Amino acid sequence: MKTVVLKFGGTSVGSIDRIKSVAKIISSYKKKKMGVIVVSSAMSGTTNELIKKTKELSNTFDAAEYDVLLATGEQATCALIAGRLKHLGFKARSWMSWQLPIITEGPYSSSRISKINKGKILSFMKSGGIPIITGFQGINLENRLTTLGRGGTDASAIMLAKFFNTDACDIYTDVDGVYTTDPRNHSKAKKIHKISYDEMLEMASLGAKVMQPTSVQDAKLNNINFSVKSSFQKKKGTLITGTKKTFSNQIITGITSTKNDSKVTIVGVKDRPGVAAAVFKPLSLNQINVDMVVQNISLNGKETDLTFTIKSEDVKKTEKIIKQNKRISFRKLTYDNNVSKVSIIGVGMITTPGITYRMFQALASKKINIMVISTSEIKISVLISNKQIKKAVAVLHKEFKLD
Amino acid sequence: MKTVVLKFGGTSVGSIDRIKSVAKIISSYKKKKMGVIVVSSAMSGTTNELIKKTKELSNTFDAAEYDVLLATGEQATCALIAGRLKHLGFKARSWMSWQLPIITEGPYSSSRISKINKGKILSFMKSGGIPIITGFQGINLENRLTTLGRGGTDASAIMLAKFFNTDACDIYTDVDGVYTTDPRNHSKAKKIHKISYDEMLEMASLGAKVMQPTSVQDAKLNNINFSVKSSFQKKKGTLITGTKKTFSNQIITGITSTKNDSKVTIVGVKDRPGVAAAVFKPLSLNQINVDMVVQNISLNGKETDLTFTIKSEDVKKTEKIIKQNKRISFRKLTYDNNVSKVSIIGVGMITTPGITYRMFQALASKKINIMVISTSEIKISVLISNKQIKKAVAVLHKEFKLD
Repeated sequence: MKTVVLKFGGTSVGSIDRIKSVAKIISSYKKKKMGVIVVSSAMSGTTNELIKKTKELSNTFDAAEYDVLLATGEQATCALIAGRLKHLGFKARSWMSWQLPIITEGPYSSSRISKINKGKILSFMKSGGIPIITGFQGINLENRLTTLGRGGTDASAIMLAKFFNTDACDIYTDVDGVYTTDPRNHSKAKKIHKISYDEMLEMASLGAKVMQPTSVQDAKLNNINFSVKSSFQKKKGTLITGTKKTFSNQIITGITSTKNDSKVTIVGVKDRPGVAAAVFKPLSLNQINVDMVVQNISLNGKETDLTFTIKSEDVKKTEKIIKQNKRISFRKLTYDNNVSKVSIIGVGMITTPGITYRMFQALASKKINIMVISTSEIKISVLISNKQIKKAVAVLHKEFKLD
Repeated sequence: MKTVVLKFGGTSVGSIDRIKSVAKIISSYKKKKMGVIVVSSAMSGTTNELIKKTKELSNTFDAAEYDVLLATGEQATCALIAGRLKHLGFKARSWMSWQLPIITEGPYSSSRISKINKGKILSFMKSGGIPIITGFQGINLENRLTTLGRGGTDASAIMLAKFFNTDACDIYTDVDGVYTTDPRNHSKAKKIHKISYDEMLEMASLGAKVMQPTSVQDAKLNNINFSVKSSFQKKKGTLITGTKKTFSNQIITGITSTKNDSKVTIVGVKDRPGVAAAVFKPLSLNQINVDMVVQNISLNGKETDLTFTIKSEDVKKTEKIIKQNKRISFRKLTYDNNVSKVSIIGVGMITTPGITYRMFQALASKKINIMVISTSEIKISVLISNKQIKKAVAVLHKEFKLD
């Protein structure tokens, strides 16, 4: 018997009608005589409502109790899904993480699954049952409830697929897969049928909000193939897999762009060893995420300009920190809030020379000025004016034959 | 160290502000150096919202999953209370029923607590901790969540007081105690400071909705003294206790009245053995609760009239069942929806003769006509016109020196 893990996210179970649809999706697998393990999130909105309550009670609400509170969300959804499946005549039941148990380690609110006890679920499935397991949570060695942090139900799904060694893992969400670029920004965006973990990681962290990067990382580490599908429409999704081969002649798999980036330049900073560390350490300590960095060549050997990008919401905090920084001296600070990062991603670029050139050439042909460049093995990112994002995505989409 | 169980009902924890108040009440016991065990209900409204969801998914929603769903309500409140207490600097934590565990037996949705494992709670309390335990629920021997039915958190409180053998058990609710009669209907109603289980049982089942009768029964069976108090106002409550002595010279402890009763008379029913059973059996099978019953003396030896009271909402169903009943014949059916049952309750009447006479005399003095009478050892109930309820309660309240 083929087995599959089915994961349903918050919007997929966001209403009574959605839960009915989810029960139909589950039953379609069962009708194909597959062994099904379901893992569900809380109904969308529930978790945020609960978090709001904790903030009203304490600005430093206890992390362990926070997890106890949030864990109710998935418990409720699992009971509702199981109840609906029983209503339809299936053998189903909800399973709380403590009933298996699912063991986690690490701090409250950001634990990681270390072990899943399979015995009870396997015998329930053997008798034809469909287990509906609470995502996002587990218990620690003190027998207390823990949660896995943002996107935790994805992590639960990947770990269930690993421990039960299932044949497939289908992540049902509100998008129907991963696209070559954001379909809302470019009409020629196409669904990617197959993508590697590394590409997916670059896509995820660059703004394709299909799945949390940590869960993709979990899948990569454990070599779990999984699919992303829509619970709203019956469509083929995207398979995320570990194969290292280029899937086709396409060198570039996808193109992403960011919003709300800002470029900061520290003009005339004293050029001496350790100046970059002196600038970035206090930013890091204040949870400000510095993305692209470029340091100009020092013209006179004494002064240089340091440019970097941050999220726009961090600009004021950054300004304050830099001005208070006694370890550096500089002439002035400049900002540009009208910038955006456009990236091309593809495992194919490792073995194909000339990609950088083709990217710059294509952008230049549309008079798009590049401010900062950063590269990794499978990604090239450039910072451009955010007025030119659409044009940049379109020309790159065409250049790399994604249209 | 003196120990106490504190129970908080749904309205007592119905909002964030209420939860803050509850934390204050708990801390006041802790400041008196008492050992405190807290048990809480779900926030008021939560349980009904969850039940609504089950009805939208199935008209026969699985009872086991129903319990899993409803159990989330208390889990959430306990986490919020514990989080608030920690915020105030106390050592506190939530305890789910499965973490002790609290073992139940019987069917889902109406289980009863059979055992409470004390070890973990005792050692937590020994270290100064305040355990906040989920009311209304437990786990059965299959390690699945169960709930105790309506008013189940009262039952949890009584059983915690029993198993932990605490010195006291304070039931915090939205009323500040048990009154001689409903204060909303009679301005001279007074709070009762001490009442016996049996009287409380009669009060509870007759409409003083302070506590579910089954929990009072549990307390009586286990000889647990408990108090009913308001979580909204700092006031002395009512102590419910097992002592058999009359607490004072008062013979009557309280007076209750019902709403929404109807009187049904089957006129000219054939008078033969078994006719009452033939009438009432199908009503009982259809969950229609028959309260007072009176059968007239057969005048001609052939026909009689059978009168009984039911809840007004059951009138139509009752009419249909009686008309379809082939085992009886009668001349006609009559109804009176404008009736009410007024009862006097008191353990004192067992040892005091003439109470019935005094009751009837008092009612007659106000020209109140009695339609049906029923009596128990500690209660006399009469059916009267519902236009005369206020007058009847007032004259009886005065007659039995409750003013």
